[in-house]
Amino acid sequence: MKENLYLIKIGGNVVDRESIQQTFLHDFAALPGHKMLVHGGGKLADALAHQLGIPQQMVDGRRITDADTLRVVTMVYAGWINKSLVAALNARGMLTLGLSGTDAQLIPAVKRPVGAIDYGFVGNVLEEAVNTDFLVRILEQHIVPVIAPISADASGQLLNINADTIARTLAIALAGQYRVQLVYCFDQPGVLTDVSRPETRIARLDRAQYGQLRAGGSIHSGMIPKLDNAFGAMDRGVDRVLLGRAEELATLIVGAAGTTLC
Amino acid sequence: MKENLYLIKIGGNVVDRESIQQTFLHDFAALPGHKMLVHGGGKLADALAHQLGIPQQMVDGRRITDADTLRVVTMVYAGWINKSLVAALNARGMLTLGLSGTDAQLIPAVKRPVGAIDYGFVGNVLEEAVNTDFLVRILEQHIVPVIAPISADASGQLLNINADTIARTLAIALAGQYRVQLVYCFDQPGVLTDVSRPETRIARLDRAQYGQLRAGGSIHSGMIPKLDNAFGAMDRGVDRVLLGRAEELATLIVGAAGTTLC
Repeated sequence: MKENLYLIKIGGNVVDRESIQQTFLHDFAALPGHKMLVHGGGKLADALAHQLGIPQQMVDGRRITDADTLRVVTMVYAGWINKSLVAALNARGMLTLGLSGTDAQLIPAVKRPVGAIDYGFVGNVLEEAVNTDFLVRILEQHIVPVIAPISADASGQLLNINADTIARTLAIALAGQYRVQLVYCFDQPGVLTDVSRPETRIARLDRAQYGQLRAGGSIHSGMIPKLDNAFGAMDRGVDRVLLGRAEELATLIVGAAGTTLC
Repeated sequence: MKENLYLIKIGGNVVDRESIQQTFLHDFAALPGHKMLVHGGGKLADALAHQLGIPQQMVDGRRITDADTLRVVTMVYAGWINKSLVAALNARGMLTLGLSGTDAQLIPAVKRPVGAIDYGFVGNVLEEAVNTDFLVRILEQHIVPVIAPISADASGQLLNINADTIARTLAIALAGQYRVQLVYCFDQPGVLTDVSRPETRIARLDRAQYGQLRAGGSIHSGMIPKLDNAFGAMDRGVDRVLLGRAEELATLIVGAAGTTLC
């Protein structure tokens, strides 16, 4: 029987907003057994880029990453947010380890090929090259990995990686070893049929229902890649995927908040 | 018989100056056996602070670290410099792991008490609390730690730590397990009796000679704490201490450049 592993993905707002941070860190520290955290940090990166006068351009929710922007996201994600989370979790009695995708060659990547859009220093992960052995050795020491969405290619070029993709990639890579519970935290109380009305939250969503809601236009734009990725992870061995608010983690994981995919 | 461990401390100039970086990374990658790297990054931190309009104040070579400066040094040291080094070394065929002092509670610290000077968010390391077991497990996997001079206290407050002190602390902590070769790289070809003349380099320096040169004023200011620390490390089990230029690492370690303490 495999052991449980909670793999939680949060946005940068957890670090930026004190009230959410305290609730989330408390709930995360209380999760039993193996766990790990993947974080983003787009809003803090936007703020630093603005302060430095580096214009930012987003295409389909992805950041066009020139050399100056790469430096900004590496500093913000792997520096400020990662170390702030590690220190805050350690203070709650955990032993956490901050990592990026290039540390211990955890998540090797390649620069995204230039197609219709040149994303710059943005990486595609090499799923088959994930250093699962290293992560398992860390987890078996009851150390909690905290992962920033930065990696590098084989030439040593740092690359900006989508944090949802990192969470999904690691969840799949670890599914052979653990019963992986993948939790995507975002700024809505779950998947909604009407984004303006929180009471339209779908508690349990299966593929058939997802297909219908998508065809009918109730689920659209940014939720589609998120849900496609999430169902895809379940196809590849991830035990369960949950979506909801970081500050509701404790109720999320028992299925009393957010959306559980099934 | 203990195995050898090279513990190399470099300044931020190694990352900032391409010519030094290539030579140093080549030589570091070629070092046989266990090795680790501790880096600073003061000049890049100065540059970012200047860009952001955050005034910097140094007292006896130590940075007064207010909240804004703490964010700058955490981003620059643990973010940009640390991940750039990790990616560049991985590209040379090594398996490196970037760490700060708060990761895996490697180097617990306390905020420096306010005395005549309030250094702000600057930490004193708790030598007896170093997580040596974690480091040894990493080194025994032939993974190379790359360490940024940032840590945290028990409350989760991030702290700015002197990189020379981190190198010395880890060298002493690991001296029970390894024959530690501690190499301090700086911007001179070694200890000089006249800092304006590189040809006055002292190839081998013992305590008696150090005492004389210090009393005579030939060794002064920033070199005194550096050498006091270095001889102190040898008193506490470190096998050998070398000082010299990062771009001369290959000749340094065979004693053909720099200064060897004895």
